Amino acid sequence: MAFNHRHLIDLREYSADDITLLLDTADRFRSVNERRIKKVPTLKGFTVVNMFNEPSTRTRSSFEIAQKRLSCDTLNFGGSSTSAVKGESLTDTVQTLCAYKVDMIVVRDRHAGAPHHIAKVSGAHVIDAGDGKHQHPTQALLDLLSIRKAKGSLEGLRVGIVGDIAHSRVCGSLVPGLATMGCEVTLIAPRTLLPAAPEALGAHHVTTDLDEALPELDVVYMLRIQQERLENSPFPNLREYQMLYGLDRNRERLMRPDAIVCHPGPVNRGVELDSHMLYHPERSVIIDQVYSGILVRMAAMYLLLGGSEDGISA
Amino acid sequence: MAFNHRHLIDLREYSADDITLLLDTADRFRSVNERRIKKVPTLKGFTVVNMFNEPSTRTRSSFEIAQKRLSCDTLNFGGSSTSAVKGESLTDTVQTLCAYKVDMIVVRDRHAGAPHHIAKVSGAHVIDAGDGKHQHPTQALLDLLSIRKAKGSLEGLRVGIVGDIAHSRVCGSLVPGLATMGCEVTLIAPRTLLPAAPEALGAHHVTTDLDEALPELDVVYMLRIQQERLENSPFPNLREYQMLYGLDRNRERLMRPDAIVCHPGPVNRGVELDSHMLYHPERSVIIDQVYSGILVRMAAMYLLLGGSEDGISA
Amino acid sequence: MAFNHRHLIDLREYSADDITLLLDTADRFRSVNERRIKKVPTLKGFTVVNMFNEPSTRTRSSFEIAQKRLSCDTLNFGGSSTSAVKGESLTDTVQTLCAYKVDMIVVRDRHAGAPHHIAKVSGAHVIDAGDGKHQHPTQALLDLLSIRKAKGSLEGLRVGIVGDIAHSRVCGSLVPGLATMGCEVTLIAPRTLLPAAPEALGAHHVTTDLDEALPELDVVYMLRIQQERLENSPFPNLREYQMLYGLDRNRERLMRPDAIVCHPGPVNRGVELDSHMLYHPERSVIIDQVYSGILVRMAAMYLLLGGSEDGISA
Repeated sequence: MAFNHRHLIDLREYSADDITLLLDTADRFRSVNERRIKKVPTLKGFTVVNMFNEPSTRTRSSFEIAQKRLSCDTLNFGGSSTSAVKGESLTDTVQTLCAYKVDMIVVRDRHAGAPHHIAKVSGAHVIDAGDGKHQHPTQALLDLLSIRKAKGSLEGLRVGIVGDIAHSRVCGSLVPGLATMGCEVTLIAPRTLLPAAPEALGAHHVTTDLDEALPELDVVYMLRIQQERLENSPFPNLREYQMLYGLDRNRERLMRPDAIVCHPGPVNRGVELDSHMLYHPERSVIIDQVYSGILVRMAAMYLLLGGSEDGISA
Repeated sequence: MAFNHRHLIDLREYSADDITLLLDTADRFRSVNERRIKKVPTLKGFTVVNMFNEPSTRTRSSFEIAQKRLSCDTLNFGGSSTSAVKGESLTDTVQTLCAYKVDMIVVRDRHAGAPHHIAKVSGAHVIDAGDGKHQHPTQALLDLLSIRKAKGSLEGLRVGIVGDIAHSRVCGSLVPGLATMGCEVTLIAPRTLLPAAPEALGAHHVTTDLDEALPELDVVYMLRIQQERLENSPFPNLREYQMLYGLDRNRERLMRPDAIVCHPGPVNRGVELDSHMLYHPERSVIIDQVYSGILVRMAAMYLLLGGSEDGISA
Repeated sequence: MAFNHRHLIDLREYSADDITLLLDTADRFRSVNERRIKKVPTLKGFTVVNMFNEPSTRTRSSFEIAQKRLSCDTLNFGGSSTSAVKGESLTDTVQTLCAYKVDMIVVRDRHAGAPHHIAKVSGAHVIDAGDGKHQHPTQALLDLLSIRKAKGSLEGLRVGIVGDIAHSRVCGSLVPGLATMGCEVTLIAPRTLLPAAPEALGAHHVTTDLDEALPELDVVYMLRIQQERLENSPFPNLREYQMLYGLDRNRERLMRPDAIVCHPGPVNRGVELDSHMLYHPERSVIIDQVYSGILVRMAAMYLLLGGSEDGISA
């Protein structure tokens, strides 16, 4: 199957076939790992730049590990270590990187649109590692990988996304990604945390009532709530949020027996999830999502740089 | 000889045989280096995380070099670059690392007990790179390696440790390590810098009089003194400390002709040691201690990850 | 041809033959790259320390990429991550690095003379990556490489250097380097930005009049102007500087048809150069200079560590 993308920036530009190829490639890397071969020489000699212009531990370290397991060279660039003090613009920085003949730029930036701009001015492949509240495509892909692994297939799944949808960069990629793969998506949040135009995201249903929605869902995707946001909110406050939207042992009774729980991490324990649900042996795929992050990032870098699914062997 | 440890956290859990195997393995790496082969492919494909939650130059860079010379992949994690801002707890962070399937976590933390906690919640091997005032086992091992190299054997050596024993994390591992290897340990310090219960550390003798102890010692281990600590101290102040406990050309006359000098670095020149003693060609093993740090860290990572002494060749 | 240098600190100590060998070696690496082989195993097992004691993005990342493409191990050391808080002196730090048996130290320091000091107390090779306003030899070499590529040969070229010569560390290496290679150098700046003794730099001519000098030049090397410096200056202010010394589409008419434009980056667009000149397809070699930086740094590390020009093949 052909993979014709130069960049991974907007998951809405990826077809179901593209996403399936990415997930299948990630599963190939999983099998390689399971044979206790952690590292493949696949991208030896390629140079990838990690340009993280805002702090990130999980996403950055996940990309770094994925890069090491593909044997490529990496350059960490950005944050406080750059000469932003000299007033170098993003365009000039990217042109410098291109002159280095780097192959790929992984970018996290608070400004939505920065990855597109970089793709335009550079000759390098670009992966968006989170831009503002816009997109976070590798997060969506790792979610899809973990859900597919747990449920066997994505087609026809009813997925509820619960929490601060208005301010989530996860949703900008996840909702379209789920829709592309044939899932039925319900957004569940208090009115204050819903986006102005929820249908624009591509969701099929919107509700403020978690308890009503829960019995219909195959997948319950809990978002991280910014506690500071609720402190200045008239309704719900933190306690009300937890009562109405927290998933705990009590509310679990409303879930289908085979429904699973996802969370992008890090979890506010006792707010959106309690420890019982976080570590639930049958329902929680939260730890697996972290591992899936390594695998889909390996797959994305590999395919964008010209690899084919058949090329992966140990 | 079997090496049955999963972690290197508390050197008191290591037998004389365990420590000997570690030192012998370190010496094997020394021989490999002497044949001008600096790098071995021994740990290729393994991933080690350096989680330094407080600043450290020497220990961190020593581990990094050791890792590179073993060809393993490393992830630097911690310090200001983490998303501690998001309130992720140590447990959650460690679970994230485990989901990455990392093999080993090297941890420096100001909280005594952090390495044990990480070992408990993770599936990874753990090396304590210094926790609070508790333990610093690789420092103790490098001291033992340099002393053994200089003196031929550790058995029966009379070792004096001089300085701020109360606040030293070096002593928590070094004193038991020396005792395990058959050394006779004397703690030498003003009362204000002695621990409340010196015998609990495992030392054989305690004295406040360096000049009296010095003629009996085979090894004089000078600790770094925190000058700020003496500024607020009624007795001794900095000048008095230097007079009574500084090792300089004059006091050297009290030393046995074959006695050596150690220091964990960095040295306060002119306080606990003068330049004459620091660079003394026959007595000072201080530069060798730094190199021993690389070797014992290579040995510890290698053995904990399943290597055997016989497996090292160039 | 023999290369007898242990260090690259003062370009004035390099003969025309030495510099030619360096540039030829850099061109060898360019050819290797052009065959799409980005990485060579040349320096496998060597350890190079990057000790950047003041912030730098471009030079540091250029060295890092060069090191990765030579397959050596690197240790980043310095900046805010060091234990400078413990008051460790430069000498002690360097002795620690030497005890690690590192092969080379690349140093950027605000103190002119730091690289010489490090070379004196260490057994390692030293490359000066910029010290105060003194020298920046790899910058000069990359300039020479790009100019030679564009013009075919350096001998007899008339090069004008325009801008803040008094405060430029580029000039300390570039002017002598150009002179050594047979170029005729003119310094062009307002009196306030000329050094007290311009002839000491080795330049052949000095003028305050760019428009008069321009028609004679084969190479116009524009320096970056520190805008803050002009704010507190009686003459010229920023606008006057731009009028008298900015190179734009209008002033281009005074240039020889085959004259080229260099700049060490990052460019203050609209001040010393406009976008037309920065991206001028025939005249601007500014992007090529960035790539030349990788190549000359590879060449310098390779030759200092004992490589010979013939040794480079893919």
